[in-house]
Amino acid sequence: MKSILLIGQSNMAGRGDFGEVPEIVNNRCFMLRNGKWIPMSEPINPDRQIFGYFHSGVGLSASFADEYAKHFGENIGLIPCADGGTAIKQWQPGELLYENAISQAKLAQRTSEIVGILWHQGENDSINLEDVEQYHDRFVNMITSLIKDLNLPESISVIIGELGEFVGDYDGGKCKYSKEINTILKGLSKELPCSGFVSAKGLTCKNDGIHFNSKSYREFGKRYFDVYLKAVEK
Amino acid sequence: MKSILLIGQSNMAGRGDFGEVPEIVNNRCFMLRNGKWIPMSEPINPDRQIFGYFHSGVGLSASFADEYAKHFGENIGLIPCADGGTAIKQWQPGELLYENAISQAKLAQRTSEIVGILWHQGENDSINLEDVEQYHDRFVNMITSLIKDLNLPESISVIIGELGEFVGDYDGGKCKYSKEINTILKGLSKELPCSGFVSAKGLTCKNDGIHFNSKSYREFGKRYFDVYLKAVEK
Repeated sequence: MKSILLIGQSNMAGRGDFGEVPEIVNNRCFMLRNGKWIPMSEPINPDRQIFGYFHSGVGLSASFADEYAKHFGENIGLIPCADGGTAIKQWQPGELLYENAISQAKLAQRTSEIVGILWHQGENDSINLEDVEQYHDRFVNMITSLIKDLNLPESISVIIGELGEFVGDYDGGKCKYSKEINTILKGLSKELPCSGFVSAKGLTCKNDGIHFNSKSYREFGKRYFDVYLKAVEK
Repeated sequence: MKSILLIGQSNMAGRGDFGEVPEIVNNRCFMLRNGKWIPMSEPINPDRQIFGYFHSGVGLSASFADEYAKHFGENIGLIPCADGGTAIKQWQPGELLYENAISQAKLAQRTSEIVGILWHQGENDSINLEDVEQYHDRFVNMITSLIKDLNLPESISVIIGELGEFVGDYDGGKCKYSKEINTILKGLSKELPCSGFVSAKGLTCKNDGIHFNSKSYREFGKRYFDVYLKAVEK
């Protein structure tokens, strides 16, 4: 089986409300739990409580997996390791989130081949200039370490998503460097051999002002897959 | 912070229906997600889908943690690693579930001290006589390996729960050795230095015939804590 590693912060984990979009049911799609594969069902990445305001919910990985399974006609497993509210410095080797992702990915590698990494993160690093300035190097350090520690091919597809257009307006404009982060993310996608950058153009947020709504997550996941397809065909 | 490792099969994970009992809200109780602590909220152990028939749900660990926090007046973190439908041979060193539990427990140990292990399992080993005959040795191998690999004190409290009285009647009586497994579990609790056995007497099942209902999980968690308290006072 092929598998995909999901890392980043809340918009990779998924915060969309249930019921806003139809559930995706595809018996070729799976998600990792305790090192084992179970049928895919949202929430895929349970980093937060299920019931409540900032809850784990609909995300972009479901429609990505659905498109993947339909296109290739094969099973696909998602390895959910994203964590809400996290900065890229928390994703450096040795940090909890990095080590958790390594442990989960290694368990997944016993029964699958990791063929891609999906990344969506950066809201937390768009608040302070120092974080913006270090984003590029922190990302490179994270991804090169991941590839080495998981013994992945250097040509592994790393798909990087754009921060939402609405992020700059969130909470009185605290994420004031979101455009700069997007420029860096786009640049990073060109440095890596088989990477790609996913536009968030036109996607809209839920009422909290920071998370995509479920409909936009569905569309975003499809865009991630289109970019993935172009990246693997490089 | 103190923490508790949760291992076993579905009745440790929790399959109780939401809404059948009030939610437990205690700001001293936490659960592990991606190596980090977040406020406790059910489902605590998301080994299965959240929505559907055999869903992750209310379990015994919530009322255990609530009692713990109230009694000791301190924070407590739950490390959820239980996995539904699993046999004890899947919990041996080197197996996915064992290695997942080790990886999660090690991440938890960066920020907490593990002070107990809660175990509820055995339904899957009460079907075939060979599994019954090997249960004792498999349990001892698992727990001694866990203690060694996590560098826990040999006197760590290991709290073992009884299989429900209803298990023998499940699915035409397929779990025909459930009483024998309970005898073995009780015996194991006496072999370990600070262990204890939790009675499931009078607890009832939900309509699937194999899982406790939410009200019984709440009671079972309290009983686990009473036994834990006696064990640590040994």
